[in-house]
Amino acid sequence: MPSPGKTPSGKTHIDELGIFGGKPLFSPPRPIGQLATPPAAEFIGLIREAYERKRLTNDGPLVRQLEEQLAAHHGTAHCIALANAGLGLMMLLQITAGGKQGETLIPAFSYRGLPHFARWAGQRPRFCDVDPLNHTLSVASAAAALSDDTTAILAVCNFNGAGDIAGLSRLAAEKNRPLIIDSVYAIGSTRHGRPLGGNGLAEVFSLHATKLLNGFEGGYVTTNNDELAALLRQQRNFCFPSEPDINLEDFPHVMGLNAKLNEFHAAMALATLAQLDEIVARNRERYQAYRQVFAALPGLDLVPCPDSDEETGSFLMTVAEVTTEWPLSRDETVRLLRAEGCAINPYYSPPLHHAMPDPTGVPVSLPVAESLAERFFQLPAGDLVSLPDITRLGDLLAFVQGHGQTITARLRKQEAAKGATP
Amino acid sequence: MPSPGKTPSGKTHIDELGIFGGKPLFSPPRPIGQLATPPAAEFIGLIREAYERKRLTNDGPLVRQLEEQLAAHHGTAHCIALANAGLGLMMLLQITAGGKQGETLIPAFSYRGLPHFARWAGQRPRFCDVDPLNHTLSVASAAAALSDDTTAILAVCNFNGAGDIAGLSRLAAEKNRPLIIDSVYAIGSTRHGRPLGGNGLAEVFSLHATKLLNGFEGGYVTTNNDELAALLRQQRNFCFPSEPDINLEDFPHVMGLNAKLNEFHAAMALATLAQLDEIVARNRERYQAYRQVFAALPGLDLVPCPDSDEETGSFLMTVAEVTTEWPLSRDETVRLLRAEGCAINPYYSPPLHHAMPDPTGVPVSLPVAESLAERFFQLPAGDLVSLPDITRLGDLLAFVQGHGQTITARLRKQEAAKGATP
Repeated sequence: MPSPGKTPSGKTHIDELGIFGGKPLFSPPRPIGQLATPPAAEFIGLIREAYERKRLTNDGPLVRQLEEQLAAHHGTAHCIALANAGLGLMMLLQITAGGKQGETLIPAFSYRGLPHFARWAGQRPRFCDVDPLNHTLSVASAAAALSDDTTAILAVCNFNGAGDIAGLSRLAAEKNRPLIIDSVYAIGSTRHGRPLGGNGLAEVFSLHATKLLNGFEGGYVTTNNDELAALLRQQRNFCFPSEPDINLEDFPHVMGLNAKLNEFHAAMALATLAQLDEIVARNRERYQAYRQVFAALPGLDLVPCPDSDEETGSFLMTVAEVTTEWPLSRDETVRLLRAEGCAINPYYSPPLHHAMPDPTGVPVSLPVAESLAERFFQLPAGDLVSLPDITRLGDLLAFVQGHGQTITARLRKQEAAKGATP
Repeated sequence: MPSPGKTPSGKTHIDELGIFGGKPLFSPPRPIGQLATPPAAEFIGLIREAYERKRLTNDGPLVRQLEEQLAAHHGTAHCIALANAGLGLMMLLQITAGGKQGETLIPAFSYRGLPHFARWAGQRPRFCDVDPLNHTLSVASAAAALSDDTTAILAVCNFNGAGDIAGLSRLAAEKNRPLIIDSVYAIGSTRHGRPLGGNGLAEVFSLHATKLLNGFEGGYVTTNNDELAALLRQQRNFCFPSEPDINLEDFPHVMGLNAKLNEFHAAMALATLAQLDEIVARNRERYQAYRQVFAALPGLDLVPCPDSDEETGSFLMTVAEVTTEWPLSRDETVRLLRAEGCAINPYYSPPLHHAMPDPTGVPVSLPVAESLAERFFQLPAGDLVSLPDITRLGDLLAFVQGHGQTITARLRKQEAAKGATP
């Protein structure tokens, strides 16, 4: 009988791995989301005030306060708070298409919701390739895909870099197309010492609990365009008139919906916003602990998060790359870690053009996105992961590395016995 | 100088009317929404639990509990909780259109958001006339408007009656079209002694603070259709797989989005649901107070809310009808009451086919909707309106009735002086 507890992970024999019936390393499972929560008293105090004020939704005082603070944080003229970030992308793509049913350029290595949002906005998604370094929309690929049908360029700023914002802005300006930026993973990031938010026509951020700034749920758009801001404010409230007034008869294509944020979420986001720097600092500390662990792990690399004067990331996500030296496949590694109580996923896999057939009917080969989609998985991250957790996980991965051949042989035998493809 | 306080409204001279510079009758203004709130302790207790559980969104335990309780309340196989009711209508119209860009039949005397929801779902709104009694979609008008292009019939159950659900169901079955019901104003209503919820293919309800069941914000769909329920569950979460699993490759037209309800709103709705009967009872009491007041007011009628064994309403709204005997126009009455601290609106005015040009290009005359849209306004209602408030408002209206000619003369002179159309 192997005796547990000898090592940080407690695993000394492969029988002790969760996937082979052993006790999982983590219980409860460790998530991949930020899940930062301000002190309960502060948040509940704000909620109690809203409750007693009986002003619960529809552009209440906390929403306005949040919008002001976020516009100041991002250094933009406008912040429009919304029920969630996805609705913000739908709204921006809908408004900017001007009633045309065209195409939205979308990076193929990105969040699965993006093509859906384009379709809701009446647009066909056209998938483009990404930069191999920071996985953002490739300017060359976007330029090649751009046509008369293109109604918008949807770029994504990732946790590991904002990408070639300047190049995309030049392309957008030259071709007279709106550049919309999904910056959901980039809140807390800076470029040239300043937070993102003022690039392109508009940027979209999230207040989801798993993102850096926790409003439980919610999102917002930042923009310096007055007309767009006014349209978004009306659109989020069923196109009812709002301040500043804009005559929607001049914009008959704009469709209203309910995308309002309420006082609840604004209270939570305000309480979290006060702690933004501390949250990023805690993330950086965990990231550095992971770096130390990975330095000693042949076969697994950590996707670097920028941390220089030019650009800093939010360290919201921690993503591992499986190289050919690693004994297990990426998917085997994910299965093994899930069985150890790591609530993790492959990272953006499959690529979007494989997950959803391109409705333009053009067969696409996007080699960078396709290659990236095979190689990464997310590691447990955020405020529910401690530094000792990372040490234990590192020890487990070293154990897996050391017993790689035995583990893969047994895994593949297990799969074959199930009748599944090995 | 007139001495105030002699009458319940304190108005003894028209100079004392708010619109002529007098002190408003109500301060703070009285709203038209329900704004029922459970005891703060109960709600904050549930919130604290969710907070400590760190399970804030994404189909958490409170959302599941709410869905179970609501399905039981409505007597349906499924309840799918959503971020709001409008998203529910967009989703239902999107799913049922099957990828076709067709037309949704919509009653023209209804909520301004409806045609927008149809457009988001890729459908052109086609406006139909309504029943003069309970203002619901006219079966004859819907039958006349139905064509090969029709992808869905969108009916509305109003606070003052569910309408000819049987007739619409027959039409839908005969023509093989989905009947989707907007029941946002009908929660708390019963037909044949049972709550609504199981009619048509699906019904949509709201958890907005101004509606009967206050979740701050939120909505839900009830249905007995297993396949539709499974599709909605995936659709509300970006089309990620969920329980029960359904293969979306068989439904390639279904577009995902973020329409999830979170634990916050579920906590509030659960705490309010326990009080539903009391809320309806309080509404009924206020409605009866209004009836008494209106019985003595020539020229103003109260739109009756059903209250029989066959059908009961929720008494959520209180709507007044301006007849030819009333000295002021409907719009003058609304302006006058707003200046008295009644945060009221005309009721469904203008009709939808006048508010938004019919994109089918067919000029439409919908005489019942057009006539109704001229005649009604909402009265202050809900839990922030007391019985003495209603007495005072009745006294004010009697005063306005008694001084009708003087008031209208002065109002029209005021308008003429402003250079506006009298």
